[in-house]
Amino acid sequence: MTELRFEHEALEEFVAQVFAKVGFSQEDAATEAHVLVWANLRGVDSHGVLRVPAYLANIERGGMNPKAEIRIEKETPAIALIEADRAFGPVVTTFAMETVMAKAREVGVGWAVIRNTTHQGAMGYYALMAAEQDMAGLAFVCNPPNMAPFGARAAGVHNSPLAISVPAGEMDPPVMDWATSMAAFGKVNLAVDKGIPIPEGWALDAEGNPTTDAKAARILLPFGGYKASSLALMFETLSSVMVSNALLTPYLLGGDKPTPGIQNSVVAAIDVATFTDVATYKQDIDRLLQGIKSLPPAEGFTEVLVPGELENRVKAERMAHGIPLPEGTVANLRVVSTSLGVTMPDPLS
Amino acid sequence: MTELRFEHEALEEFVAQVFAKVGFSQEDAATEAHVLVWANLRGVDSHGVLRVPAYLANIERGGMNPKAEIRIEKETPAIALIEADRAFGPVVTTFAMETVMAKAREVGVGWAVIRNTTHQGAMGYYALMAAEQDMAGLAFVCNPPNMAPFGARAAGVHNSPLAISVPAGEMDPPVMDWATSMAAFGKVNLAVDKGIPIPEGWALDAEGNPTTDAKAARILLPFGGYKASSLALMFETLSSVMVSNALLTPYLLGGDKPTPGIQNSVVAAIDVATFTDVATYKQDIDRLLQGIKSLPPAEGFTEVLVPGELENRVKAERMAHGIPLPEGTVANLRVVSTSLGVTMPDPLS
Repeated sequence: MTELRFEHEALEEFVAQVFAKVGFSQEDAATEAHVLVWANLRGVDSHGVLRVPAYLANIERGGMNPKAEIRIEKETPAIALIEADRAFGPVVTTFAMETVMAKAREVGVGWAVIRNTTHQGAMGYYALMAAEQDMAGLAFVCNPPNMAPFGARAAGVHNSPLAISVPAGEMDPPVMDWATSMAAFGKVNLAVDKGIPIPEGWALDAEGNPTTDAKAARILLPFGGYKASSLALMFETLSSVMVSNALLTPYLLGGDKPTPGIQNSVVAAIDVATFTDVATYKQDIDRLLQGIKSLPPAEGFTEVLVPGELENRVKAERMAHGIPLPEGTVANLRVVSTSLGVTMPDPLS
Repeated sequence: MTELRFEHEALEEFVAQVFAKVGFSQEDAATEAHVLVWANLRGVDSHGVLRVPAYLANIERGGMNPKAEIRIEKETPAIALIEADRAFGPVVTTFAMETVMAKAREVGVGWAVIRNTTHQGAMGYYALMAAEQDMAGLAFVCNPPNMAPFGARAAGVHNSPLAISVPAGEMDPPVMDWATSMAAFGKVNLAVDKGIPIPEGWALDAEGNPTTDAKAARILLPFGGYKASSLALMFETLSSVMVSNALLTPYLLGGDKPTPGIQNSVVAAIDVATFTDVATYKQDIDRLLQGIKSLPPAEGFTEVLVPGELENRVKAERMAHGIPLPEGTVANLRVVSTSLGVTMPDPLS
């Protein structure tokens, strides 16, 4: 399978121009492009520019809203309910994270529920925003059903991802970012683009039977059986139900379906300085990470990795040598380039 | 293997008397006994009265502190740092949950970090406290290493449990409560008491090799590989490191070890009324749970369960017919009864 490499800034600029072309402000288009390419840089290609064609289709059918009016509907010194008006996920979520960080600076914690956002990209981005401001950051999201709850042969929950990050000193801030499914759907799509099968245990087909055919995969499976399944369900109770915008129930019991592509989300920040000395905290995190890395590796491993470490290595390599995109993704982006008249950068030779 | 059944109130009264006998106030002893028997009632025997002998040993070696002076060290309208002074876990954690609920009532969210608590029992108890007050409740805890991080053959993180609960209407509030390991150590201990092996994938022995011998199990394994492993690590960063009381690092890098049995914990509450109408919320939760239960069961399942449902069924049965304790646990409690001169209830016939 052929892959072509693209310089990350050129790729980001291209994607920003694409979104500006379909009606988003330069600033919002740039924010969206930045978060997508950030995911690619870290090797999370499932949440990268692969998504652009689907986003454009979503915009065209009236989902993602170029003229969204983001507003804070309810607020206290510690919480916010933010109506996203179907804004680009990264636009409203960076705003929400700034909002909760400002609250955390005052009262130690900020907690926001975002209603009616659209796809937010890699949630680790927002958690890391807090870590870079000496805060702990937390972010999760809910969507309509795409995963079978433990014990079911049909979709009932979303494979809601969860991201947590905290500040470090000399080390990179640890960033935990995973979906409650064995794998995110983006990884299934990537397997389709790459023309390879998916591992057993990742998905069911449309009839609820296990499959390894990426093209036939329709329903994801939770990791850890009832454990991640219940976490996904509780995320819906803390986000969608908390803002009276249920995303699962209309699919489970019937009724008006939410606008396709809509999701609800929680972001939170905890200010380290409210609890302890920031310099001490960062030093303690460094030591903790160094301690984990000092453990003897299990059979089949050459080292013990800490959360985000692998992604940071990929990022260093891709900053230097470009982002590799599979042929399928490149072909899709070329269609976008042609149809919108936005010049796509040349691949690196 | 023989099991004997005990009436739950009689068992709770016995355990309360045991703890009062070794120096705890009647009130604190009763709180501890209540949380232990609550776990047994729900079938979580790993966190029930099985623990009494270990608690007594812990008290004797100066761990759990009968005369603890619990104090709020730092506070804002939204957060609290609570020094537990090695109090009984349920005593300080119910206090902490009351504290964050009071804050949530004012500003929508309350977040507390508890430093230097001792074993807190089943964390679901505290999350449910919030749900019963029309709030979402969240609780997690960290301890010294007992679980191998993903990719390691030695202990490096704790199998930190996480509990979340939210209010429901006619249905029981859903209660998610699980450890980040494949199984909690209490379940390994229960297998020892029952004289049965543990499943593959639960644990490593002292040398870091996989084992199914419950007696040889020394190091737990995370569920979902890197996913639950990283969650456990992040819990340490949000609890222990946040209150400058690292529990993992001294074991990883050397240095003064924390007092045995000490743990740090986070509890949080989110007030539903701050975000939406409470009656609507509860109705929406009922519908969500009913929707999940309406899904077709997977092969090998007869129904789809929601978080806490199985435990509530066990509770109804055990309220009516008593709590079954394995012979090993009963023998241990009889030793306690004799040595402290506290009469143990007769088993139900």
